[in-house]
Amino acid sequence: MEALFYFYRMKAIILPEKNARPSYVEVPEAPKSEGMEVLTVMACALNHRDLWIMKGQYAGLKYPIIPGSDACAALGSKRVVLNPGLFWGADECVQGKHFQILGLPLDGTFAEKVNVPAENIYPAPKHLDDMEAAAIGLAGVTAYRALVSRCKPVPGERLLVTGVGGGVALFALQIGLACGLEVHVTSSRPEKLAKAIAMGAAGGVLYSTPEWETKLKEQCCDGFDIIVDGYAGASFAKLVQLARPGGRIAVYGGTGGKMSDIVPQQIFWKQVSIFGSTMGSQTDFAGFLALVNEKKLKPVVDSVYDLHNAEAAFQRMESQDQFGKIVLRVSGK
Amino acid sequence: MEALFYFYRMKAIILPEKNARPSYVEVPEAPKSEGMEVLTVMACALNHRDLWIMKGQYAGLKYPIIPGSDACAALGSKRVVLNPGLFWGADECVQGKHFQILGLPLDGTFAEKVNVPAENIYPAPKHLDDMEAAAIGLAGVTAYRALVSRCKPVPGERLLVTGVGGGVALFALQIGLACGLEVHVTSSRPEKLAKAIAMGAAGGVLYSTPEWETKLKEQCCDGFDIIVDGYAGASFAKLVQLARPGGRIAVYGGTGGKMSDIVPQQIFWKQVSIFGSTMGSQTDFAGFLALVNEKKLKPVVDSVYDLHNAEAAFQRMESQDQFGKIVLRVSGK
Repeated sequence: MEALFYFYRMKAIILPEKNARPSYVEVPEAPKSEGMEVLTVMACALNHRDLWIMKGQYAGLKYPIIPGSDACAALGSKRVVLNPGLFWGADECVQGKHFQILGLPLDGTFAEKVNVPAENIYPAPKHLDDMEAAAIGLAGVTAYRALVSRCKPVPGERLLVTGVGGGVALFALQIGLACGLEVHVTSSRPEKLAKAIAMGAAGGVLYSTPEWETKLKEQCCDGFDIIVDGYAGASFAKLVQLARPGGRIAVYGGTGGKMSDIVPQQIFWKQVSIFGSTMGSQTDFAGFLALVNEKKLKPVVDSVYDLHNAEAAFQRMESQDQFGKIVLRVSGK
Repeated sequence: MEALFYFYRMKAIILPEKNARPSYVEVPEAPKSEGMEVLTVMACALNHRDLWIMKGQYAGLKYPIIPGSDACAALGSKRVVLNPGLFWGADECVQGKHFQILGLPLDGTFAEKVNVPAENIYPAPKHLDDMEAAAIGLAGVTAYRALVSRCKPVPGERLLVTGVGGGVALFALQIGLACGLEVHVTSSRPEKLAKAIAMGAAGGVLYSTPEWETKLKEQCCDGFDIIVDGYAGASFAKLVQLARPGGRIAVYGGTGGKMSDIVPQQIFWKQVSIFGSTMGSQTDFAGFLALVNEKKLKPVVDSVYDLHNAEAAFQRMESQDQFGKIVLRVSGK
C-alpha cells in the first residue's frame, strides 16, 4: 500500500496500527504479479488470527495490513475458494521456511480484490452459496489436517472436540461425523453444547464446571480414540488421561497457554500419540474440499456483516458469543 | 511356587517381599502348559523393571516372584532369545488387555528354567555369545519400537538420545547408527558421553549442567529430527524446543515424573509428533532381531555376575554406574 503509482483503487478493511479499529478505506489495487492471480472477492470470513493481528498479538506484525485469510471470489467466470496457507513447500509433514498465511504479511481478503498464488485457488463447492463458501478455508483445512491427515480416523472411533463453537472445532465436529465417528464435545456455554448435539454430536460437557473430565468419563467410560484440541493449557493433562489405549490427540492451538502436569506413564503405557498440527498443505486442502463436496458439508455461518461493517464483525468475534463463522459480504450473495 | 506336587526342582532368584534382598533358592520347576515352552536358561539380564519390582515400585506387584524378562536359553537343541512382551494382541498400535511382561505376574528368567509362550521365542543371533544374546530383549525391542516403528527414521536425520548408559538408550544409539542417523546423546556422567562417542555418537552434553539445552543447540543449531527420551519430567519441555520442524519425540519412560511448561505453539507450529511407546509387538521384535542380524549389532554388556550373585547385580544397577546391560550367567558361556 506504500506505492502510489497504481491506477485502480478498491474498497478494503485495513488495520492501521496495533489496537486500532479496523477502517473501511479506499486503497490501490495490488498489481498482478508472477504466479499470482487477482481475485474479485464476493465474501470473506473472520478468523481469530485477524483479531490477534488487530490486537498486536501475532508474530511478524506489520501495519497497515489488509487482514483476512478466507474468501469466496471470482476468477474470470469461475467461482473459487482458496487455501490460505501459502508457499507450504514440498514436505507434507511440515510447512517450509517460506510458508505464510494470507492476510499477513501479504494483504488479505477483506477487500474487493486479493492477490493469491495460483496454486492456492480451488473451485468453490457448488452446493454452497458465496457466504458459506467464504467460511470454509482456514478453519476447514486446519480441522481436516489435524483430524484426518494427522490422526487418521477409522469409522466407529470415538472423537472428542474441545471448545466447540470456534471455527476449527465445528469443522472437526462435522468432519468427524462425515468420517463415521462418534463425536463428543466440550464448551463453556450450554447453548453451544445444545447446538452441537443438534448437529449430530453424541454428547457434551461444560468444561467450565469443576470435574468436567469426570463427567465426560461417565458419559464415555473408556475414553476417546481421538481428541482434537486448540486450547492446550492446564486441561491438556486431562485429555491425555481421557485418551484410550492407542489414542491420538491433535493440538492445533494454544490459547490456554503452557501444558503442565502431564503424566508420562499415561502417554507411553497407552501408546498415545500427540500430534501438533497447523493449517494444511495443498494435499490437505484438496482432501478437505473433496470431503466437503462428497458429503455436501455446509459450514456453520454465525452471522454475515457488510464489509464496511467489519468492526462489528470483529466485536462479535471478541464477544465469544459466536457459534460458527463470521462472514463479511463484499459483493456476493 | 505355592504348589508342592512338582517333581523337578531348580535354582532361581526370588524376590520374597517388598524391599527384601533377592534370594538364591531352590524352587519347583513350573510344568509345561498349553502354548508355553519350558526353556533352559543359559543367561539372563537385568532391567530397571526388576529393581522397581524389588523395591515395590511397580503396578500389579505380587511376591514371591522370580523376576527377569530377558534370557538366552535352550529349547531342545536350539539356542533362543525371547520377546518379553507377552500376549500383545492383534493391534500393532497398542498392546491389548491381556498384555504382560515376563517376570511379573508370570515368573521370569532368573532361574534355570522359564516357561514362555511359544510365539515369543526366536532364534538367538549367531554372532552373539550367550551373555550378549541374553542382553538384547526388553531394552532392544523397546528402543526399536520407540525409534523405528514409532518415529520412522530416514537415513541422514539427526537423533538425540537422552540418558545414554541405560539399556534402552544404548540400543537407541546403536539402532540409530545402524539406520544411518547422526546421533547425539545426553548423560549425567562425562565417562558415559565419552563411551557413547567412542561407539559412534556425533556428540553429547551433560544434562546435569545448567543450560545443557543451550550447549546442545550450539552443537546442533537447528535441532533434532527425532528424540528418544525415557525421562520426561521438567526437561521434556526443552526437548520440544529442541525438535526440528516436523520432529518426532518418542517417550518410553517417565523416571523424571510429570511433564510441565510445554509451549503448545512449539508443538503445533513445528508440527511436532510426540509418541508414547512401551515394549514391542512380535512385529517389532522380529524387526529388531532382523536388524541385529543384518547389521551384526552387539549389545553393550556392562558386567556379568553368576546367578547366585544376583544381589550384587541389583546393587550395580542401583548405583547407576553401569554402561550397558548387567547380565547373570546361569549355565552359559
